[in-house]
Amino acid sequence: MTHIVVIGAGFAGLEVVKRLKDTEFQITLIDRNNFHQFTPLLYQVATAHLEAEEIVFPIRQLLNKNTRFLMATVHEINPYTREVITDVTSLNYDYLVIATGSVTNYFGVVEADVHSYPLKTLQDGIRLRNHILTLIERASYATVEEREELLSFAIVGGGPTGVEFAGALAELLKGPISKDHPNIQPDDFKVHLVDANDNVLKVFRDKLSGYARERLEKMGVTIHSGRYVTELSRNRVYLSSGEEIKARTTIWSAGIVGPDYLTGWELPLDDRNFITVDHHLKVIGFENIFAIGDIASIDSHPLPKMATIAVQQGQYIAKYLSGDTTEPFQYRDKGKMAVIGRNAAIVEMGRVRLTGMLAWMIWSIVHIYKLIGMRNRLNIMINWVVAYFRKGGQTRVILPGSEDRILPMMELGKYR
Amino acid sequence: MTHIVVIGAGFAGLEVVKRLKDTEFQITLIDRNNFHQFTPLLYQVATAHLEAEEIVFPIRQLLNKNTRFLMATVHEINPYTREVITDVTSLNYDYLVIATGSVTNYFGVVEADVHSYPLKTLQDGIRLRNHILTLIERASYATVEEREELLSFAIVGGGPTGVEFAGALAELLKGPISKDHPNIQPDDFKVHLVDANDNVLKVFRDKLSGYARERLEKMGVTIHSGRYVTELSRNRVYLSSGEEIKARTTIWSAGIVGPDYLTGWELPLDDRNFITVDHHLKVIGFENIFAIGDIASIDSHPLPKMATIAVQQGQYIAKYLSGDTTEPFQYRDKGKMAVIGRNAAIVEMGRVRLTGMLAWMIWSIVHIYKLIGMRNRLNIMINWVVAYFRKGGQTRVILPGSEDRILPMMELGKYR
Repeated sequence: MTHIVVIGAGFAGLEVVKRLKDTEFQITLIDRNNFHQFTPLLYQVATAHLEAEEIVFPIRQLLNKNTRFLMATVHEINPYTREVITDVTSLNYDYLVIATGSVTNYFGVVEADVHSYPLKTLQDGIRLRNHILTLIERASYATVEEREELLSFAIVGGGPTGVEFAGALAELLKGPISKDHPNIQPDDFKVHLVDANDNVLKVFRDKLSGYARERLEKMGVTIHSGRYVTELSRNRVYLSSGEEIKARTTIWSAGIVGPDYLTGWELPLDDRNFITVDHHLKVIGFENIFAIGDIASIDSHPLPKMATIAVQQGQYIAKYLSGDTTEPFQYRDKGKMAVIGRNAAIVEMGRVRLTGMLAWMIWSIVHIYKLIGMRNRLNIMINWVVAYFRKGGQTRVILPGSEDRILPMMELGKYR
Repeated sequence: MTHIVVIGAGFAGLEVVKRLKDTEFQITLIDRNNFHQFTPLLYQVATAHLEAEEIVFPIRQLLNKNTRFLMATVHEINPYTREVITDVTSLNYDYLVIATGSVTNYFGVVEADVHSYPLKTLQDGIRLRNHILTLIERASYATVEEREELLSFAIVGGGPTGVEFAGALAELLKGPISKDHPNIQPDDFKVHLVDANDNVLKVFRDKLSGYARERLEKMGVTIHSGRYVTELSRNRVYLSSGEEIKARTTIWSAGIVGPDYLTGWELPLDDRNFITVDHHLKVIGFENIFAIGDIASIDSHPLPKMATIAVQQGQYIAKYLSGDTTEPFQYRDKGKMAVIGRNAAIVEMGRVRLTGMLAWMIWSIVHIYKLIGMRNRLNIMINWVVAYFRKGGQTRVILPGSEDRILPMMELGKYR
């Protein structure tokens, strides 16, 4: 029986498994977590609009008879012995599909990895939420100077993640959190968005990105365009323009790269550490290894790193392995959308371009639809309906256990 | 203005604050978390039937104009200078209400605190769930002998918590988890309930506790009555009868005591380290300090430690401080209930005694009703409806970040 090993249960890997369900293949799906995470809504967990468990789904509940799950961390792969070595066991494969995704790119900025929060995993989201809420609890009892730092937030990167997080954070702080803290005024909160491009959401048409910028500014977000971060410290963000932003919280959503561990896997990598594949998504130089999702790089014409592309690549691999196609992979652009806040989103589908409430409703429906699990769908709908009237922030809970990445425990202890 | 400091935002402390909302008092509520937790449903978080954030509610959303919140840990109180010293700041009070609750009582059993899981806080619940699910993921790739230990679970204590947890765990393991793991059969899971009394749920009439025992046994729970635990190790529970239970997971729900830190507070304590109060719930020897909830001990006639009593004591203190009563505190028994599993609960209200589906429906309705927050109510209802048809376990997610209390990271890492 042909054994396919799929590493990573993100959008790409999961799609392969789903599509191969009624085939003769024997499949092993490997992930370090026992759940699939719906990354597009991660920013809503971090900003206390959704519950952590509402955007994840237990992997085993999605599997078919021909698929086995292994919760493990992959240490290395050996393309020559066709072996995957994990911290639990080792597996031999006939075909290997690598879909382990990307990690945050700090562009070598000094201390960026130490003093900023990424937003790629569920744990990132929980930690970031805990950090934000803890600092605000702290601010009520802090000195005036410290207070200013505690209540200002810097977001690095004006892509969809940065914009969506900035909007959701502004709504959280100036809405429910301000109500929570009688001694803090909405304007005491500062949200800074730093973007190297001349405008946010560059991937969209100017009309749409212009709308996004306007909305963000209306929501009280200060946008620093055409500037990049040169250095980070515990309470400062230094910009290429020479400006300094006082902030005890910096969220880094500026870019992605391939994970470091790949360098040990003897596979061809591009300059951003992504695995280079051919038009059949085959890893260059290997007949039976594929790479899909964020981690794959088709050098000739690079594709943006999006969930929709990951899913399409998963579907393609399933077809290709089943012998249903020998055509090269073709990405069908189904358009893109981003949400800025309440009643405010942008949608671009071919010639169709929408903004405002209608776009926002389409965004909401599409995301509910794409979620896995009826329970998640219902729970998130309820949260969004409640959020719509209560102005969000209904899960502003500091979840115990997930320790803060940055603040030393001692310092946090002082405020817990 | 009279300043009342309330320590603890559990059922008792929160009730005081709510009831004093339209008074002249200035109130400061202190808790180490920024949320109130609905402890009666904690076992459902631990057994993956509910989401962690569904049983908690942000404290600040519940506060009134005359109440200030301080997220902090109380280091000590000084009854003579009328001061509360926390890790954030110090406060002077005119009246002090201590409602910090109880902690797990290990009865001095050797290694019990090291090798077993308590179930008192949200973090306990998350850690326990993570531990259970991680061990099962492990079992699929473990040796036969190790597998047996990994798949058996011991619960110490046949009170409501122990029984409700045992029932919910059996349903989780023999239902959804068995479906998840094709190579594990329902009967491979062993659930042991150790109870020092001659029957579980001693606080109920024999007819009802007999029913509970029957149901648990039907669900595959092995009950060890009239035995207590003499010693615990990493993978064994030693009973007074000489028996040994092989188990890598032991949940300790055998009893409660007053927290250790009380010993530094110069207050009168009883033999179980609870604060002794008079019939006005005044701490013996102090005119302006009250203790309510689990932590209070009325020596002459001790009361069971229940949420309903905590709430009534909170109501009483509010009345007493407002001058609406000088009568001693009287507990009004509103009856008690416990749930064993799907369609199976027991209810005892005066002469009314119910079992089975009707009792189960009453239990469900009462708990939904007692929850704080419409969003929590709706989300939990959805989870319970889905659970009813899917046999539960819909949140079987290993939440990242909350590290395991017992398994050394190295060992866990091997399986993460």
